[in-house]
Amino acid sequence: MLKRLEVQTTSRVQLVDVTSQVKNFLRVEGIPSGILTLYVPHTTCGITINENADPSVKEDIISVLARLIPYGADYRHAEGNSDAHIKTSLLGSSVMAIVESGSLVLGTWQGIFLAEFDGPRKRSIIMKVIPG
Amino acid sequence: MLKRLEVQTTSRVQLVDVTSQVKNFLRVEGIPSGILTLYVPHTTCGITINENADPSVKEDIISVLARLIPYGADYRHAEGNSDAHIKTSLLGSSVMAIVESGSLVLGTWQGIFLAEFDGPRKRSIIMKVIPG
Amino acid sequence: MLKRLEVQTTSRVQLVDVTSQVKNFLRVEGIPSGILTLYVPHTTCGITINENADPSVKEDIISVLARLIPYGADYRHAEGNSDAHIKTSLLGSSVMAIVESGSLVLGTWQGIFLAEFDGPRKRSIIMKVIPG
Repeated sequence: MLKRLEVQTTSRVQLVDVTSQVKNFLRVEGIPSGILTLYVPHTTCGITINENADPSVKEDIISVLARLIPYGADYRHAEGNSDAHIKTSLLGSSVMAIVESGSLVLGTWQGIFLAEFDGPRKRSIIMKVIPG
Repeated sequence: MLKRLEVQTTSRVQLVDVTSQVKNFLRVEGIPSGILTLYVPHTTCGITINENADPSVKEDIISVLARLIPYGADYRHAEGNSDAHIKTSLLGSSVMAIVESGSLVLGTWQGIFLAEFDGPRKRSIIMKVIPG
Repeated sequence: MLKRLEVQTTSRVQLVDVTSQVKNFLRVEGIPSGILTLYVPHTTCGITINENADPSVKEDIISVLARLIPYGADYRHAEGNSDAHIKTSLLGSSVMAIVESGSLVLGTWQGIFLAEFDGPRKRSIIMKVIPG
C-alpha cells in the first residue's frame, strides 16, 4: 500500500529526520522483505540519507549547498527560489531502502531526512514497499 | 516488461521533458500499482525530476551546473567532456516513481527530464515497472 | 535474497569499480528479470554509475568534488569529515539497475562504483533483486 507522510517544516532550509515515522510505517505494513521507495512530490524539497548522530552534519550540508548555490543570486526563474529547485535535483526526489525481517536495513549512523529548501511549508513523502 | 524510450537531443546541454512519453508507457503497460524505474544507460547524460511549468527553472539548473563544473576546464579525461560525466553522477542515472491506479504519482509541478550534458545525441531511457 | 558485498578501500577518496562483483551476484541469484537495488549503509561513502573505460574520468570526478567541497574547510562537525558526508548526499546512498535475461542492463561505458570519501575503510554494499 501507498502511504503519505505529512511533514510541516519550520525554516526556509532544513533537514528533517523522518526515520522513526518511516520505521512506524514498515511496522504497520508488516511486509517481511522487500524494497522501500520514499518519493517526494515537490520540486523545491528533496530527500537524502545521512548521519543522524551529530546535528552539525546537517548544518554543514545546508551551508555548503548555500555557498555553492546561493539564495537570491541572479537566476532567470522569477519566483526567486531557483536555488531550491537546483538543490532538489542534486539530492534527488526519492531514496530507496531495503526491508529485511520486517525492518529497515540502515547503517548504524544513517537517518532519512526530508530536505526542505524553500519552506516553511507542509510537505509530504509518499512511501511504498514492494515485497520480494 | 522493459521498454526503451528513444530521445534525440538537440544541444550540448539540455533538459528534455519526457513526462508524457512515460505516462503513455504506463497506459500501455496497464499495471495498476507498483514502482517505476527509469534508467539511463549513458555516462554523459542523466535524469532528474523538477519543475515543468516555468522553463526558466531548466535554464537555471543548466547554468548553475555550468558555473560549478565548467566545460573545457583543465580535466584529465582526454575526450574533453569530463564536465558531462561529473554532472551525470550528481544528478544520477535513474529516477524512481510510484504507480497508483495505473497512473504516475507526480506532484503538481513535477516533470521528468532527460538531462543531456554532451549532446546532441540519440539517447535512450529504459523503463520498467515492478507491480506490487 | 539480500547479499552483502564487502569492499576494502585503500585511500581516503577513491572510486572502486564493483561491476564484476555485482554481475556475479546476479549470476548466482538466477533471477531472469527484475530491478536491482544497491544500497550503501554508510554516511561518508556513496555509490554511482559512470564510465569504466578511461580511469581519468574517476580522477576528474574526485578532483571536482574536492574543489567544490574541500576537505578540512571550516565545518561545524567536529570529526573533520563533513566533506565526505556532503559528497555522499550529492552522489546518493543507492543506485538502481535493471535485470533482463538474468543479466544487468548496463550501457556500453557504464560501470558501478563505490564512492569512498573517508577511507581507507572496510565498506559494504547491500544487494537485492526484486523479480518482476
